[in-house]
Amino acid sequence: MAEAEATGTTRRRANWEVRREAIVDTSAKVFAKRGYHATGIMELCAANDLGKGALYHYIGSKEELLAAIHDRVMDEVLLGADRVRHQGGSPTEQLAMLGTELLDVIARYPDHVWVFLHEFPALTGDNATQFRKRRREYEHHVEAVLEAGIESGDFRDLDPKLTARAWLGMHNYTYLWLKPGGELSARDVAQPFAEIFMRGIVRH
Amino acid sequence: MAEAEATGTTRRRANWEVRREAIVDTSAKVFAKRGYHATGIMELCAANDLGKGALYHYIGSKEELLAAIHDRVMDEVLLGADRVRHQGGSPTEQLAMLGTELLDVIARYPDHVWVFLHEFPALTGDNATQFRKRRREYEHHVEAVLEAGIESGDFRDLDPKLTARAWLGMHNYTYLWLKPGGELSARDVAQPFAEIFMRGIVRH
Repeated sequence: MAEAEATGTTRRRANWEVRREAIVDTSAKVFAKRGYHATGIMELCAANDLGKGALYHYIGSKEELLAAIHDRVMDEVLLGADRVRHQGGSPTEQLAMLGTELLDVIARYPDHVWVFLHEFPALTGDNATQFRKRRREYEHHVEAVLEAGIESGDFRDLDPKLTARAWLGMHNYTYLWLKPGGELSARDVAQPFAEIFMRGIVRH
Repeated sequence: MAEAEATGTTRRRANWEVRREAIVDTSAKVFAKRGYHATGIMELCAANDLGKGALYHYIGSKEELLAAIHDRVMDEVLLGADRVRHQGGSPTEQLAMLGTELLDVIARYPDHVWVFLHEFPALTGDNATQFRKRRREYEHHVEAVLEAGIESGDFRDLDPKLTARAWLGMHNYTYLWLKPGGELSARDVAQPFAEIFMRGIVRH
C-alpha cells in the first residue's frame, strides 16, 4: 500500500517533469521568435495550451522558464564535456571531441541556443549567478585542455583564455546556420573546424 | 541670395543628419539593453529627449531606426573591407587586415553590433533584403580572399564558404567581451586570432 502510494507519487513527479520539459521546449521557440522581454505570460499560455495557473504550476515565473532554457543547454554542454574527459586522449583529440559535442548541442537545440546566446542578460540574482558559474565551468574546461596541450608541447605557447574565446566563438557562432536536418551535420562541420583550429589554413 | 538660401538648406540638411546620427546611436543603446520588440516609441522619445512628432521627423519609423543601426555597422564593415582591398598584399595579409578592421568596428560600436547580431530577424521587406545583400557582400569578400589564397597555393585546399563562416564566427563573437577602453584592444586580439587562423594552435 505504502509502496503503491510511493509509486503513484513518483509517477506524478515524472509526469510533471515530462510536461515541464515540453513547456520549456515550446517556450524556447516562442522566446527565440519574439524575444524574451516582448513575450507575455498570456502568449506562453497560448503556445503551451495552458491556463495561467497551470503554467505557473510548472514553471514558477517567466524568468524561471528562461533559466530552465539556459539549464537545458548547459546540462547538455557540460555532459558532453564530461564524456570527452572520460574518453581520454591527447589535447588535440580532446579539443576535437569537445567541438563535435558542442556543435551537436547547437544543432539539436537551435531555439534554446538562440535564446541562450541572446537573452542571458535578462537573468537576475541566483539565476544569473548559476548561469555564469556553469558557463565559466565550461570555459575553464576548454582552457584546461589548451593548457594541457601547451604543457605537453603539443600546442604553441599561446594565451589559453584568448584562444578559448577564439575556439568558442568559432563554434558557438554556428547557431546562425547549423540546423537539425540542415545541409551540414554537426560532424560535417566539426571536422574541418578542428583542422582549421589545429593546423591553420596556411599550407605548410 | 540664391546662394545663401542653398547654403542655408545645406546647413539644415547637415544639422538634420547630425541629429539623426545621434538618435541612431542613442537608440542603439536602448535596443541593446531592452530588446527591439520590447522597446516602445515613447521610450525612444524619452531616451532622445524628443516628442513623438520630432522623433518621426528624424527616423520615419521604429523599423527605419533598426535599419539605420544595421547600416551604421555595415557601412563601417564594408569601408574597412575596401581599405583592405586597396592596401593590396598576399591573401594571408589581406585576411589579417580584414580581421583587424572587423574587430575595430566591433570594439567601437558595441551597442550597434549587439543590436545587429540579435535583432536582424526583425527587419522586414526592403530593409531585410538590403541588409542581407550587404551582409552577403561582406561574406563574399572574405570568401574571395580565401579563394585567392587557395588558388595561389598559400592556403590549403579548403571549403571557402565554411572557412569564411569559421573566420566570421571567431571574429564576430568577440562582441560579447571586446569593449572600447577594455583590457584588450581590437589590435591586441586581431594579431593572435590571425596567428591561430593561419597557423593553427598545434606546434609544427
